[in-house]
This record gives sequence, structure tokens and C-alpha cells, in this order.
Amino acid sequence: MQEVKKLWDEVRELSLGSNSTIERLESPPTPLQFLRDYVSQNKPCIIKNVSLHHQWPAFSLWPHPSYLSKTLSSSPPVSVHLSPNGRADSLVTLTHPRSGEISQCFASAHVERLPFDEALQLVSNSKNGDVVAYLQQQNDCFRDEYSVLGSDCDEHIAWATEALGCYPEAVNLWIGNQLSETSFHKDHYENLYTVVSGQKHFLLLPPTDVHRMYIRQYPAAHYSYSRVNDVERFTLELEEPVRYVPWCSVNPYPSPETRESEMAKFPLYFNGPKPFECTVNAGEILYLPSMWFHHVRQSPDDNGYTIALNYWYDMQFDIKYAYFNFLQSLHFKAPCDPTLLEIDYEDSRPNASICNSREKLFADASSLNELETTKDSEDA
Amino acid sequence: MQEVKKLWDEVRELSLGSNSTIERLESPPTPLQFLRDYVSQNKPCIIKNVSLHHQWPAFSLWPHPSYLSKTLSSSPPVSVHLSPNGRADSLVTLTHPRSGEISQCFASAHVERLPFDEALQLVSNSKNGDVVAYLQQQNDCFRDEYSVLGSDCDEHIAWATEALGCYPEAVNLWIGNQLSETSFHKDHYENLYTVVSGQKHFLLLPPTDVHRMYIRQYPAAHYSYSRVNDVERFTLELEEPVRYVPWCSVNPYPSPETRESEMAKFPLYFNGPKPFECTVNAGEILYLPSMWFHHVRQSPDDNGYTIALNYWYDMQFDIKYAYFNFLQSLHFKAPCDPTLLEIDYEDSRPNASICNSREKLFADASSLNELETTKDSEDA
Repeated sequence: MQEVKKLWDEVRELSLGSNSTIERLESPPTPLQFLRDYVSQNKPCIIKNVSLHHQWPAFSLWPHPSYLSKTLSSSPPVSVHLSPNGRADSLVTLTHPRSGEISQCFASAHVERLPFDEALQLVSNSKNGDVVAYLQQQNDCFRDEYSVLGSDCDEHIAWATEALGCYPEAVNLWIGNQLSETSFHKDHYENLYTVVSGQKHFLLLPPTDVHRMYIRQYPAAHYSYSRVNDVERFTLELEEPVRYVPWCSVNPYPSPETRESEMAKFPLYFNGPKPFECTVNAGEILYLPSMWFHHVRQSPDDNGYTIALNYWYDMQFDIKYAYFNFLQSLHFKAPCDPTLLEIDYEDSRPNASICNSREKLFADASSLNELETTKDSEDA
Repeated sequence: MQEVKKLWDEVRELSLGSNSTIERLESPPTPLQFLRDYVSQNKPCIIKNVSLHHQWPAFSLWPHPSYLSKTLSSSPPVSVHLSPNGRADSLVTLTHPRSGEISQCFASAHVERLPFDEALQLVSNSKNGDVVAYLQQQNDCFRDEYSVLGSDCDEHIAWATEALGCYPEAVNLWIGNQLSETSFHKDHYENLYTVVSGQKHFLLLPPTDVHRMYIRQYPAAHYSYSRVNDVERFTLELEEPVRYVPWCSVNPYPSPETRESEMAKFPLYFNGPKPFECTVNAGEILYLPSMWFHHVRQSPDDNGYTIALNYWYDMQFDIKYAYFNFLQSLHFKAPCDPTLLEIDYEDSRPNASICNSREKLFADASSLNELETTKDSEDA
């Protein structure tokens, strides 16, 4: 285990230097620079002054909701993700109503396709505990659902495309506000994350920190949203047949009530080196290297929205990827450090207790009621 | 241990595909291609038709010893490495003359500086068991000792320089014949190994195979060569104070007599995946990625020489390097596979037994006689 801790430190030192901050470039790098100094080294950076150098109309136009509404008025409906708390694609803790047993599942949002204007209104009207809406769909939604905005920005980031030798596999648009956040995860893509309006706040951890994320298999569930007679309701439904999703267990911002227990459950995260924190402002691009773990929160602009566009490029599955798989495959059963004694990496495989929890939790439909939220419709 | 074996296989598959051969490019890559497809992925390749594309006079001129002799006739002396068997910078097995105890040390060549013509003659007159000469010095010798040949080739490989963002740290010339070979080792450089005349035969292993190399600490020793009254003699002298050199223990071509015992000592090498074999011909460049283990033999041209020029560029000490250090730091004490039970990775640190061996072997000067070779001088 000492060797793994040394690895965490060494990557921090090599990737980000002694001051451990993400490098900010004043202008876009050349393709060679980008490839040599960042992609090849799997090292993040932030590119400033993108609006100056790329001159996308998007930077001046999109912050005005009226522009977006007008431009998208005759477009087909867009995907909007609904959840009761802005934390879709994240873990939900469930307590069995009778046994009191606690279990967790991986909950995806309820996805609806709505006219843009209506969807944007839902974002604006979002309320934590009721409904939080987030316009997003990580399936190349920009080129699909928002194609009329295509001329407001570049189809690809030219210097990145040249460096990586391919066009983006997907371009995704994200319109939300401070109520939505994205839990820790990693992507198998090189990510150029462009903030158009508002701010994005990232926590970043290198792939070598994989054990600190406590990746475990969680049963997949979906929020289902319904509005009947102006009564809104979320239910959480497990996938049938049960399907397991490997997901990071750590919530970096636990509530004051759960903080102590979370720290006790995930000591490698909470007692280890701090994640890299960075805020990406409007007009900046974060190069988020493939396989880096990231957690994202956001601050809205003056109109109440955070707008971002991310370009996903295929990553190279090379020796770095093989090293990562190797590292992840190592289980530490008898760590030398007494603070680590609780860890049993074997937990990362589905086991009988998790498998059974589904039965226990959902055999009785009444258990779902715990997750329902009701409120009067706020729609006009 | 199973995880490490999986890593060996995965890197082979990812780096070199299913047919496990080193890719041969018909012409030099662009800087971006080179960086993206090879350097960044730490993946070797061979570039063909270098003489066609780079048009160095060296390819046509250097194969003629008379050209080299004439051009270098008024140059300062050049470095020549002398050893009794062509295996300098490699392990030598010593048997204590009285106790019969077997020990090993890391033996460097005797280095002399001689007029080029005389040095070349020594290569030509090399005899295994007597004296084997190898014109080389891995300290930027080309730009230092052979500067008059500078106009016969490029000071640097333009596409590599542009890709790597720096000029070579060292350029080394190697003139030898089939009697010299280089034992398994790795370098902390990106290496562009250009064969000008003859052939070089490489065995290559990715850095992830580090445990298969059985890197151990060996006491450093130097051959010392003397010629007194036409009697030539090599003695092997341990460095004072004792200094340990970490070196690969595996000889991939053991003699028929030692083959069985070598295979028993190094099962991870001999029972594991085959090394990549490649022959680099005159007019070709091998891109030998940093940290790859390599063993080199050579075949001479019609005039009896193998001539090569290698360009060492600084490597990036990035996440790949950190992963390597981590992997190397892992010791496998209780492997699951019964064929691996002999391994005790703790051996890789100097221990009392090795420390003492120096005393035992060399307390009595007579023990050195075992290493002496005598012969009548063949010099004109």
C-alpha cells in the first residue's frame, strides 16, 4: 500500500509540479505542444482567452436566453434530464422502510424530450427537493438536437483535432444551473470542456488515484417522473433484469451530518492528497485528460444558466491504459498503514449482499414511496 | 502475480497488435504522427528508406573504411572499448579459486583513446577470448570525437526534434563487428537508432516486463588491459569503494551448458512471452522508446564492420514513468503460479551475501588470475 501512496505523490509531482495547480495557458497551444506537453503526459491544462482566439459568436450570443429560444424555436425537442435533487447519474442511498437496511443504487435521470423553450423554463424553475432540470444528453446532443446552433461555434477544436488525428466522437451541450452537479467518474475520452457562460468547478484526480474512489458495483436504477393532476412525483425504479454499474462511491461534499461516517468509510479519499480544484470560466477550455476522475459543480451567469460545450475525442488505448488496468486490478488486503485497515478491495465485485438488497428493497412496492416527491405543478 | 502477467499480455496486444511485430514505416513520419502514434504510446517502430529521404552522404561513404581513415586521420584520438569477449557493460560470473563460490559483477570495458586508424584496426583484429574492440562512447562521442564526420549526416533527426521539442542530448557513433554485443538494459532516453552499415539485431521488451529482467544490484568492476613485452592481459578490478549497479540478470542466449540452469533461475523471462525480435538494416532507423529493455547483437557489412549512429533525446518523466516506478517497486513473495515459487523479489536489494562476496573473491589477488588472458600481440 505504501507503494500506491508513493505513486499518488509521484504523479502529482510529475504532472502538476510542486504547487499542484492546473496550468493556465494564455492562448491555445499548437497541435504539437498540446500533444507533447498535455495529451501524451495525460496532464490537464486550462486554455484562456478562447473567445479571443476562436471568435465563436456563441460566447456573445448564448448567454442571452432570448437568442437561444428564438433560434431553437422551430427545432425538434431537446433532451432534458430531471431528478429530484440535481444529482442524476449518482448514488442514491435507500433505507428499507421495514428492515431499516441501508443500500445504494446508481440512479439515472428521468429523460424527457421537450421543446427547447419549455425545457429551459424547467431549468429556471428548478428547485432542490422538487424537480431539478438539466439540458444535456451525452450522446453527441449538440450536433443532433442543437444543429441550428452549429454556426455559432466550431465543429471541432482545430488544434486538438490536428493533435489527436481525428474529429470529435461526440459534442455535447450542457445547460443547467447551480442545482445540478455531476458525481465523480471518469471517461474514456480526451475531453475539451469549453465553458460558454457561467462557471464550472472541477475536482480532478489522476487515474492513479483509482483506489481512492472506491469504485464498486451498484445496481442501476432510473428516476421516473410523472405529473398527474398537477401532482409531480419521482419514483426510482431498478432496472429489470438487474444490471450493475461500476461507480465511484465517494461524495466529496458530504452533508455535515454524514461527514464523519463518509470519512470513516472512505479514508483513502479523505485522508489522502487533496484533489485538484479548478474553476473554468466562460471563455476557457479545460483539457480534461482521459481516465481522470472528475466531479463537477457549476455557478450560473447573470441570467441563471451555466452553458458549456464539451468535445469528446477518442483516446488511445496504449501502455498508460494497460498500466491503469493493472493498478486497478490490485487489491490491498493487509495494508501496513493502520488507517487503511478497513479496506477490503474484494468489495469491488458484486457480492451476495448487494445482489440480495434489490429483492429486499423492492419486493414491496411501498418501499418506493420513500423516494417520491410531490408538489403542485409550477408550470404556467 | 496473475495481474502482472495480464499486464505483459495487454501491453503486447495494445502496443504491437496481434501479430506482435514491430511496425515498419516506408518513410519518415510527420512530427505529429511520430509523437501521437509512437512516442506518446511508448511504442517502437522502424523507419525504412532513411537514406532515400534523409540523403546523408554517410550511407554511401562510411561503409568504406578508407574514407573514414582518411577523413579522421588528423582528428584527435577516439575512444575504443576493449574486453576479452565483446561483452562489456555486462555481468561476469566469477568463481572463487579456493572456495568455488560463484559470484557475479557488472564489468565495464577498458577504455583507451587511440588514433582512429589504430582503433579501427583493433576492431578488425578482434578475437573472442583475446581482445574484442568496439569503437563507442555513450557520451555524445559523435559530436565530440567524430566532429569531422558531422557534415555526412544530420545533426539531429528533424521530424523527431520537432516532435520531441528539443535537440538530441547526445549523438553516439558505434563501430564494431559481430563479436560485440550489448546486454539487456534500458535507457532513460527516446532513442533513434540509425544503422549506417551492416545490421543490428534487437531483442525488445516493454517496460512493463521489468520483473522478467531480474534487475539486481551487482558490484561494479572494470576490465583493465595491459600489454607488457607483447603479452596482453585483462584483469577485472572491482571499484573501490564498492559501488552497486542495478543490471538485468538475464542472458537471452545462454550457452548450451548453462541453458538449463539459466532457465531455472529466470523462469519469468524464459517461460514468459517472447521478446520482440527485429533486425535493423543499413538505411533504417529503429525508434526505441524510453524505458524499453533491449539486447543488441550485430552483423558486419562486407568490410567487416557494423556502423550505427544513435540519437538520444530527453524523455518526458510523466505518468508512464510513475507507473513504471510503481510496478518495479512491487515484490511478489507468494506467487500463485508454482513455476514462480523461486522468486524472492527482495533479492533485488544488495544484501549481506553480495557485500561479502567482494571480500571473499578479491581478498587474495590471485583470484584475479582467473580473468587474465594472455596472448602475443597482434599489433603490427
